[in-house]
Amino acid sequence: MAGSVGLDRLTTPFGSAKNVLGGSASYAGLAASLFARPIIVSIIGRDFPKHALEQLTKRADLSGVKRQGKIFRWQGRYEFDLSSAITEKTDLGSLAGFRPELPESAKQAGFLFLANLDPTAQLQTLDRHIKLRGSRPFVMLDTMNFWIERAKPALTKLISRVDLLALNEGEARQFCSEANLITAGRKLLAAGPGHVIVKKGEHGALLFSNEGVFLSPGYPLETVQDPTGAGDSFDGSLIGFAAKKNDVTTKTLRQAMTVASAVASFTTESIGPDRLLSLNQREIAQRTAVLKQMVRL
Amino acid sequence: MAGSVGLDRLTTPFGSAKNVLGGSASYAGLAASLFARPIIVSIIGRDFPKHALEQLTKRADLSGVKRQGKIFRWQGRYEFDLSSAITEKTDLGSLAGFRPELPESAKQAGFLFLANLDPTAQLQTLDRHIKLRGSRPFVMLDTMNFWIERAKPALTKLISRVDLLALNEGEARQFCSEANLITAGRKLLAAGPGHVIVKKGEHGALLFSNEGVFLSPGYPLETVQDPTGAGDSFDGSLIGFAAKKNDVTTKTLRQAMTVASAVASFTTESIGPDRLLSLNQREIAQRTAVLKQMVRL
Repeated sequence: MAGSVGLDRLTTPFGSAKNVLGGSASYAGLAASLFARPIIVSIIGRDFPKHALEQLTKRADLSGVKRQGKIFRWQGRYEFDLSSAITEKTDLGSLAGFRPELPESAKQAGFLFLANLDPTAQLQTLDRHIKLRGSRPFVMLDTMNFWIERAKPALTKLISRVDLLALNEGEARQFCSEANLITAGRKLLAAGPGHVIVKKGEHGALLFSNEGVFLSPGYPLETVQDPTGAGDSFDGSLIGFAAKKNDVTTKTLRQAMTVASAVASFTTESIGPDRLLSLNQREIAQRTAVLKQMVRL
Repeated sequence: MAGSVGLDRLTTPFGSAKNVLGGSASYAGLAASLFARPIIVSIIGRDFPKHALEQLTKRADLSGVKRQGKIFRWQGRYEFDLSSAITEKTDLGSLAGFRPELPESAKQAGFLFLANLDPTAQLQTLDRHIKLRGSRPFVMLDTMNFWIERAKPALTKLISRVDLLALNEGEARQFCSEANLITAGRKLLAAGPGHVIVKKGEHGALLFSNEGVFLSPGYPLETVQDPTGAGDSFDGSLIGFAAKKNDVTTKTLRQAMTVASAVASFTTESIGPDRLLSLNQREIAQRTAVLKQMVRL
């Protein structure tokens, strides 16, 4: 998977933390590692702190992570209702102008996740992975409002080339200039991917395919501390689960979404990735069972 | 059931309509009548137009509807995203100071729905129904932000005496002064009712009970014209379905919610109650099947 790895400074109504491991590939990588060992393609600053990097080293192949220039830093804040992050400061560091280089180990990888990143770098990753493998992997893509506003043509091209697009409710509406979420989901499906997932936070996630619309519930959580990385961990555990099963049918993706909702719910229970780091299989299975029971008629 | 019957003037981005049948008991009664014949307890103005009243006469027992004073009129508007109604004008008419009188036919009714109305009138309906029957019926209650702001003590007392409370997301958060919806649902459950339903519009509805949390999906609709009465039709079809089955177990309420989501989705497809009036069992069964399929793993 390709994405960002950096340091976050987080402020929530329940506390704050600084210099914690952050970035789309960090959360997605940690979550994916619960199911399969991910190869991370990214760039980190030369002075990236050892304690933060060690959290990733144990769980992922970092041979595609370049050490160069300055650290990517994000500073964000949440209000009492935790509904959306307010970006206070972004320092791209060496992430600006990042050109991905894929390690030899990626040759064996049949699943590619393009986590949130500049669409130009995402496209390069895709092309280089195809070249390295000599064939197309299964490709999943996420993005954010920032790129929809600034790089829509590149993003549109990219979307036409992926198998699974996952974005959140607001981004789906924004990309399609469409208030109705079902219409937006169907428009995105028509843009190329065989599957589109629209993440709705506490309201769960919708899966659009030619087999209709599927709803995966959100885990009924009372202890949300910090939503940072919830969407990325959803993505990571979803692609990790599919890779482990080596299957991308709608049926497997429905199951993967349920497991991914469980994993994402844990991520929100600590400030930063702490809870995701301490998570075990028994805990995931327990919440997955609750989610299945939640929709049983 | 007790609630309001009046005339609405509606403006949406897709068109407008005036002097259409409206009010909580109208929508709930029409929806309930798809499953069982409801007895409506309400008050309408002396000059209530025949064409509007006839829509109810065919479907409900109106022996508890008084003709007195002026018509209750509501004028509302929706913006492009259809997310919430903007009240432009309310003329309570004879609804102000309404004191419900229960007809003899209500003696046989084992299910009482207190649709949105002044909590004082709701309490009186409950007491009179118990007196008339000589025993407690199964009691379902809905309300709105207006009464939470102006009559919280009466509402709190009422909530402690009902079996099923149904309100929408914003109202649940407002009543409990609580941003987390799961916490709000659990607080409402602790306030007395054996079951609490939180309606979330397009995101479906949650059922809280001592058996945990259940999620009923919202029907994936692209053709929303006017959300007026969607919540009331959800309530009405839910209580109608339970009355028809003569059962109020959690299992039946889960099924009832799925059917109610289907009925409510039709209500939004026309301006006013037209689509609800033309609805048939085959159409309900079709959407109920889609909703079941939507969450199947």
